[in-house]
Amino acid sequence: MTNLLLRNVRPLADEACDILIENGRIAGFGQFEPVAGMPVEEGGGAIVIPGLIDAHTHLDKTTWGMPWHVNNRAAILRERIDFERENRKEIGIDPHRQSMRHAIGLVAHGSTHIRSHVDIDPTHGLSLVEGIWETREKLRGVIDIEVVAFPQSGLMVMPGTAELLDEALKQGCEVLGGIDPCGIDRDPKGQLDLLFALAVRHGVPIDIHLHEAGELGAFTMELIFERVRANGMEGQVAISHAFALGMNDHLRVGRLIEEIAALDVAIVTTGAPSATVPSIRQLKAAGVRVAAGCDGIRDTWGPWGQPDMMDRARVIGMKNGVRSDIELEHVLHIVSQGGADVMGIEGYGLAEGCAADFTLVAGETLAHAVVETAPRPMVVKGGRVTARDGKALVEMP
Amino acid sequence: MTNLLLRNVRPLADEACDILIENGRIAGFGQFEPVAGMPVEEGGGAIVIPGLIDAHTHLDKTTWGMPWHVNNRAAILRERIDFERENRKEIGIDPHRQSMRHAIGLVAHGSTHIRSHVDIDPTHGLSLVEGIWETREKLRGVIDIEVVAFPQSGLMVMPGTAELLDEALKQGCEVLGGIDPCGIDRDPKGQLDLLFALAVRHGVPIDIHLHEAGELGAFTMELIFERVRANGMEGQVAISHAFALGMNDHLRVGRLIEEIAALDVAIVTTGAPSATVPSIRQLKAAGVRVAAGCDGIRDTWGPWGQPDMMDRARVIGMKNGVRSDIELEHVLHIVSQGGADVMGIEGYGLAEGCAADFTLVAGETLAHAVVETAPRPMVVKGGRVTARDGKALVEMP
Repeated sequence: MTNLLLRNVRPLADEACDILIENGRIAGFGQFEPVAGMPVEEGGGAIVIPGLIDAHTHLDKTTWGMPWHVNNRAAILRERIDFERENRKEIGIDPHRQSMRHAIGLVAHGSTHIRSHVDIDPTHGLSLVEGIWETREKLRGVIDIEVVAFPQSGLMVMPGTAELLDEALKQGCEVLGGIDPCGIDRDPKGQLDLLFALAVRHGVPIDIHLHEAGELGAFTMELIFERVRANGMEGQVAISHAFALGMNDHLRVGRLIEEIAALDVAIVTTGAPSATVPSIRQLKAAGVRVAAGCDGIRDTWGPWGQPDMMDRARVIGMKNGVRSDIELEHVLHIVSQGGADVMGIEGYGLAEGCAADFTLVAGETLAHAVVETAPRPMVVKGGRVTARDGKALVEMP
Repeated sequence: MTNLLLRNVRPLADEACDILIENGRIAGFGQFEPVAGMPVEEGGGAIVIPGLIDAHTHLDKTTWGMPWHVNNRAAILRERIDFERENRKEIGIDPHRQSMRHAIGLVAHGSTHIRSHVDIDPTHGLSLVEGIWETREKLRGVIDIEVVAFPQSGLMVMPGTAELLDEALKQGCEVLGGIDPCGIDRDPKGQLDLLFALAVRHGVPIDIHLHEAGELGAFTMELIFERVRANGMEGQVAISHAFALGMNDHLRVGRLIEEIAALDVAIVTTGAPSATVPSIRQLKAAGVRVAAGCDGIRDTWGPWGQPDMMDRARVIGMKNGVRSDIELEHVLHIVSQGGADVMGIEGYGLAEGCAADFTLVAGETLAHAVVETAPRPMVVKGGRVTARDGKALVEMP
């Protein structure tokens, strides 16, 4: 296991000190002399924060590093899903190669953990998940990858998918995904009953994509709440996107958030710039666990995004009208500790005994670090330096 | 005047060719041999587009390059205005130094023209405008700066401001600004009557900040329309922000846009991520002139923003839910030709006889260039190279 002496850094913008790492964990903060053979790194007085966490992405989808993908197709969710499923092979979106590019990009920009939804459908079976598992093995010790078995094309409208999800969970997917039980599956009761039964059988948490806006999404949330309660799955369910919480009825949204807090349902936001999004301010006030993710980046769905959780912090902060330093620090919390809270990562944080997973950031203060677009000076995973000056030290395929 | 042979570039992503520049203007596209003494630049096959235009910014406000400005004040428009006016000197926001940093940042990222609103109020008189004029002189030939005489603190609630605006227009400000006639001035008839009278007297166009949302902003727009018509100022008035056009009543918004088109009122959008913004799609369909701007960057109002119109193109594109290549090209149009249309810049564009004001961009296609965050390889103003690889060639104070 890895030892390291990291000199002259400012943990969470505190006073400068050294961090001693033994066996991949933080052994102490203070002033240390290196023992013989121990690697030493100079931090240059930079702020250090726990590793960034992308808690909602799609490692199997990006065209990053491939020729530019021209897209003048209709922007209709169902058509995007079908186009991708039927054309991803021909376009050359190899799940292993592309997930390597995507994950290594995240490493370069300071991430140490990923929760990736990965498509499972009758056309591709588990082959996309297998590609991401190959990446996970290759990047072991560089970045942790958690895989959500994700029925992107729908569950009720795509016979054979339920059996594939069952198999994926048997083989080791850590989380069960879902998507728009009304919008995509046209059968909310059917999908949600099936998802919760599968999750209970395998003892895994659930993370549901919910793009459904306004009253439709609110209705689906109520159906989810009923099943969380009935199955005793408090603390085990996340709703990603949750666009309904951005709807134009603050009393209705307030009641939904009360129930989300009471059932300890987590919210994973992408701060989608063109959608109605949950207010991170309201969720914080209610004590809801909130994580964030880059979602898809430069894929057949759309051209936007960077494999960079600080870029995402900016998207979320701007969308939420954040201006103050205090709120900028909260956005930083969401893209780091928030991810650990939602994914249940043990030993996460900047404290003695925690895993030595962190990133140095440019900036005078934590707030400054969020808005500054400069590269991360250094990224460390389990005590091993994984990136310097915005470039990952593992090779990009 | 400047001559230049720029080899091997792709005008608007067309076939590669050379561009011959004589006396600061584009003399031709094709294959040329340099005459003796003519400077030659190699474009490396990069796409070239006309210079980017920041048609709405505040050169007198940024803290760029200064120590991080901690801000935990209330996010109330009136309080932000008053805090800045009363503290900008003490904080050290020197209008000349800071506008140099801001404008040179825009040059580095491919801009060739700026419309800047500059605060005019009884506390500072015309001193901020004078600081920006000093910058304009220093950067002559590097970037063009148009100054809007801007009553940031209000006109009716701030006695003495009208006389200062009058004086600023006498001294050469090219445009008259306004701000929230209801929200800030509490007297829409008073402000707008005064503004239009001043504009007519000096023969200058008007550009009004309109943050007022929903029905309030729609009401103010109607008052503006009445005065455009009464004063024969069709084609001479711009509304910046125009948040009311993002309100949740598409029939009402449709009727406002019809009138905007009929009166040839221009819209300048910043794509403000946390506000309701005008739809660039709807404005295009109605044939409205649309420009864009970075607005304030890293100032006492808020921490966001970059001096980079491609960054702003991304903010506007994401906010408008743009996904297709065709629409990405339209966003690029807004941050270039759109600015020229609104500011009335003559000889702008990539055609024979136009001023040699352009930027090379990274990317395989125009759409790709919008989403790619790589630095601009080269920026040219009047045939002179002003920036290379994201760095301006003039010195930053």
